[in-house]
Amino acid sequence: MKSKVDCIPCMFRQALNTSRLVTKDQSVIRRIFAQVADWTKRISLDNSPATNSKPIYLIVSEVTGVSDPYAVQKKQTNQGALALLPELRKFIRKSPDPLDAALHIAIAGNVIDMGIGHSFDFNREVEEILEIMNRKLGISDLPDLKAELHPGIKLLYLADNAGEIVFDRLLVEQLLKTGAKITLAVKSGPIINDATMEDAKIAGLTRLVKVITTGGNDVGVNWNNISREFMNTVKNADIILAKGHGNFETCDDRRENFYFLLKIKCEMVARQIGGNLGDLVFKHSHKKKKQVRHARHQ
Amino acid sequence: MKSKVDCIPCMFRQALNTSRLVTKDQSVIRRIFAQVADWTKRISLDNSPATNSKPIYLIVSEVTGVSDPYAVQKKQTNQGALALLPELRKFIRKSPDPLDAALHIAIAGNVIDMGIGHSFDFNREVEEILEIMNRKLGISDLPDLKAELHPGIKLLYLADNAGEIVFDRLLVEQLLKTGAKITLAVKSGPIINDATMEDAKIAGLTRLVKVITTGGNDVGVNWNNISREFMNTVKNADIILAKGHGNFETCDDRRENFYFLLKIKCEMVARQIGGNLGDLVFKHSHKKKKQVRHARHQ
Repeated sequence: MKSKVDCIPCMFRQALNTSRLVTKDQSVIRRIFAQVADWTKRISLDNSPATNSKPIYLIVSEVTGVSDPYAVQKKQTNQGALALLPELRKFIRKSPDPLDAALHIAIAGNVIDMGIGHSFDFNREVEEILEIMNRKLGISDLPDLKAELHPGIKLLYLADNAGEIVFDRLLVEQLLKTGAKITLAVKSGPIINDATMEDAKIAGLTRLVKVITTGGNDVGVNWNNISREFMNTVKNADIILAKGHGNFETCDDRRENFYFLLKIKCEMVARQIGGNLGDLVFKHSHKKKKQVRHARHQ
Repeated sequence: MKSKVDCIPCMFRQALNTSRLVTKDQSVIRRIFAQVADWTKRISLDNSPATNSKPIYLIVSEVTGVSDPYAVQKKQTNQGALALLPELRKFIRKSPDPLDAALHIAIAGNVIDMGIGHSFDFNREVEEILEIMNRKLGISDLPDLKAELHPGIKLLYLADNAGEIVFDRLLVEQLLKTGAKITLAVKSGPIINDATMEDAKIAGLTRLVKVITTGGNDVGVNWNNISREFMNTVKNADIILAKGHGNFETCDDRRENFYFLLKIKCEMVARQIGGNLGDLVFKHSHKKKKQVRHARHQ
């Protein structure tokens, strides 16, 4: 998706939230904002918000000298999410539709996102996750996925954030039960609180499936900065499950068979995806129009 | 109060909200944002948010060529508020404490503010106003005011927004009943949706009290840009009632006897005033410490 002017105030908020993790010095944040101000003047609205945002995080790192401002929070959210696993497994076991339950949990985990919106409080987020686990999805194309799943199908799973990746594991486990052949992709280096290989290990995913990196440390997928291995995996995949805003923003105009799993956190994405702010979404990019009535009449 | 770095992202939001009233052209908004970006690099955090924000509105006017982007909305909110008057008068008549009820309504009217937060929808705001009319104030120094009010006391009322000024009329009416001698001050020209002399006339206030202008069209009071008449009125006032964020931000460090009436619309003001986001506030700047217990022991 393309950016809107609305994304520009948000870029300052992203810079502020990230800066606050490593400094309380307003003069340092002023220096960061000055560079962000210059960057916002040069960006193209034809780029996705994710693409336009990446330099914001680089500016914060460069000015503060902290290469990974989210390092501490990432560890904390991984540990917090791991502690929730028994409760979440119970939720799935008790569900009449374990795949649907695991899907729900994976999308609920997308609450753990430090890049968008206000400052981050993991305990508050956990409360929200537990609350929304029973909430109806705003968009659910699960029937499409169920129709496609069969043993041997090649599935690529694009992870989003640390912490959240622990929740993804539960969905991966359910998908493995259907006989799908799964590859999971993480970022090749730190960007916001996105999951890297280390987070995939902590979540126990490297023991379950093949884990690769996209080849870049971009917000979502920067299609000009990916490895050959990642591109080949994309080409060979029958289904790509993509988590979160960044992946949606950078993959929604791709031709591959995508399913997007996310919580809608801003009006721009709400408009693009056809949902409402706050909605939990499982959206098939190749959704076929409903022809039920037509079929019945034949 | 001084500005914080947090005010800078908000300045872009203010520019965006104002721009949207007069243009849908993203390239025009980009030009506005480019100038806002340059301005944010030069501002001093020692200035109030109100003071730092004014040039944002000038930039929007200059780039779009529309000197008063809020003109239409101001008329609409005045008319909308006038239509509510009968219901509001009934609320006051039924109240055991009409002054408290009118005070409540005047603060609830501060919901009508287009400068802060998201885009404006008057019908939604009216719903909120009616809902919060019965809500307890987060801070209420009404006992202080009641102790001070007596016939002949000189009271200066700093109005805030169009629409809201209709609600102020009800409080002015109650204050007049106590025998207070009231002067009301509006802006000398358009700035955001702030009330001007025309709005005071529409609200029927010019028939009730003496109405003057501050001498400037600033957000709140720019003490370097006021008329001699306004300054003399400030000096002679026993009590100054000041509505809204802008007046609070520019008057909270003054020595005069201020009462601030506002809804807290951002974290910066919440911290400064010692309340919570969303609180309705009636705050006395000269509040005396409670000495009840001490007095009882004597």
